[in-house]
Amino acid sequence: MDLDRLRLDVLLVTHLPNVRYFCGFTGSGGVLAISKRQAVLFTDGRYTEQARLEVTGATVRIIRKSALVGIGEWLARRTLRRVGIEAAYLTVAERNRLAKLTGPSKKLVETQSLIEDLRLIKDSGEIARIRAACRVGVDLYRRALNTIRSGISESQIAGELELEARKAGVEQMAFPTIVASGERSALPHGRASAALIPASGFVVCDFGVILAGYCSDMTRTLHVGRPQTEARRVYEAVSEAQQAALEAVKPGTTVGEVDQAARKLLHKRRLGRYFTHSTGHGVGLEIHEAPRLAAGRKELLRPGMVVTIEPGVYVPGKHGVRIEDTVVVTETGCEILTPCPKNLIEL
Amino acid sequence: MDLDRLRLDVLLVTHLPNVRYFCGFTGSGGVLAISKRQAVLFTDGRYTEQARLEVTGATVRIIRKSALVGIGEWLARRTLRRVGIEAAYLTVAERNRLAKLTGPSKKLVETQSLIEDLRLIKDSGEIARIRAACRVGVDLYRRALNTIRSGISESQIAGELELEARKAGVEQMAFPTIVASGERSALPHGRASAALIPASGFVVCDFGVILAGYCSDMTRTLHVGRPQTEARRVYEAVSEAQQAALEAVKPGTTVGEVDQAARKLLHKRRLGRYFTHSTGHGVGLEIHEAPRLAAGRKELLRPGMVVTIEPGVYVPGKHGVRIEDTVVVTETGCEILTPCPKNLIEL
Repeated sequence: MDLDRLRLDVLLVTHLPNVRYFCGFTGSGGVLAISKRQAVLFTDGRYTEQARLEVTGATVRIIRKSALVGIGEWLARRTLRRVGIEAAYLTVAERNRLAKLTGPSKKLVETQSLIEDLRLIKDSGEIARIRAACRVGVDLYRRALNTIRSGISESQIAGELELEARKAGVEQMAFPTIVASGERSALPHGRASAALIPASGFVVCDFGVILAGYCSDMTRTLHVGRPQTEARRVYEAVSEAQQAALEAVKPGTTVGEVDQAARKLLHKRRLGRYFTHSTGHGVGLEIHEAPRLAAGRKELLRPGMVVTIEPGVYVPGKHGVRIEDTVVVTETGCEILTPCPKNLIEL
Repeated sequence: MDLDRLRLDVLLVTHLPNVRYFCGFTGSGGVLAISKRQAVLFTDGRYTEQARLEVTGATVRIIRKSALVGIGEWLARRTLRRVGIEAAYLTVAERNRLAKLTGPSKKLVETQSLIEDLRLIKDSGEIARIRAACRVGVDLYRRALNTIRSGISESQIAGELELEARKAGVEQMAFPTIVASGERSALPHGRASAALIPASGFVVCDFGVILAGYCSDMTRTLHVGRPQTEARRVYEAVSEAQQAALEAVKPGTTVGEVDQAARKLLHKRRLGRYFTHSTGHGVGLEIHEAPRLAAGRKELLRPGMVVTIEPGVYVPGKHGVRIEDTVVVTETGCEILTPCPKNLIEL
């Protein structure tokens, strides 16, 4: 990270995943100040012991006030003049408070993605953690297949999957578990509801776990009862689109080209207008992080990026299918971190 | 809400619980513009059907771009000059983007707590929803008592409670479930971990559910094995402190006085320094909302406020106890919404 380019004397890191990335701290309140000479984490008495155990590469200051006030007062006593803030995360009210504390001699400089840019490329330790999380995810899906049946609620399926996740040592789910059945499968974000699994129809299962701080993300769609021709056709199209996108992933390809690979195939099958979201997103300490695999975007894939590949087709009032893997970009293509069959399962 | 006092032509509501409060919309992306003449909700195509079903008191505009961009462009075409923003929620980057879209003829006016102030006092429908959520919470705790035993993990207890919650129709938990046993009971926010329940020691259970949008919040602490004299003494002190705070709750009392009632009792028992957080917080559409029941604060309690009363004692490296109810302030005192025995249960 280049403080010089922006002529920053210090960068204030307030986005907690960025704090964790830089110094390992996992508490829910803390601000990290990074200058050329030092890094200092400000947090409060709730986290004295936790900070001592977790933090590397930064000194820890336990303060009585909120971390933001603590860092503001600390800055006020220093000659550091140009103070970087994370514009995408600091609120207007926090910025004002900080400006009042630091006084007119400081300039608050808005920065974008300084630490996010570092987080784009995962090192081998991070990839190992994501792989381990994905492996748990695959295992949970296999077990979930035993609980999914007509007549029980989406929410119960999600709850049983989450209980198994906890038994497997998962800290928390990466996002609200999606189990969307029947007509609800046409909702791209159909969080598990009280709806009962119908006698016949698709069930979209999209979930992720957090293990050692890193997320997994995976979607499979299965069919309860015997699928009709149209349902089969939709499933096969999504499956082929996903495969096409996976094959497009390699260093030097743009994220927009990967999106285009999936989109093109669905257009050919006259299903393009039902693919209403982008093809994927980065995964790491956060479930959604850079890069976004969306139409027209020019960022280049590079080895060590971890992204999802998740085309879907959503026919309103009828049904929907999504198939998603998490992959790591390798030197020559990609490795699927969520190896789990993708043929259409009929339950 | 008084747009006149701040001479606002329009208020942009970006904080989603405030959006939901005002117009009923529960989607995860949307901005509401409120002027004297009208209210308009901007959201995207994912929410067309949902907005149609949910929104009252506002017209809906489905846009192709992000809601913030949509509202910025809409404002740019209007003569409205003074535009209120929610300073506590809008990020610095969002504010800049909005300013660029609306142009120099608009003034972005930072507002604080305009809708939060309305949300402070719950109406009878809201109280009924919170009561229903709390009732589910009490029932879940009773069932959880059957699963808590030495040797199983905190996380499994949490997972089984959460599965039961889903079966009871709960949309999601209000916050990460806390099950903190043995030494971990001394952590005020000891999220359920892989730690096993010890043969003897306290188990703090703190959890909440969301039902029809409204949260419950409740903590009970039980003891596995036979508690020693010191553990009993701590439990009784917290129990008495909680009772003292409950008795202090009535219209016209300040929130600081309620905090003081609990704190004073724990000081008398020489446990005051182990009570390291405030006595409670408001509960409603959010699990933490105004008012904060903290030392020295002067806000007056009023009928219809819903708050938690949750003193605790945390002796580092040893043990901790917290007892928490959610209550609604009545004309003469308060009604406990989480009626559930508070004598020390030994399992």
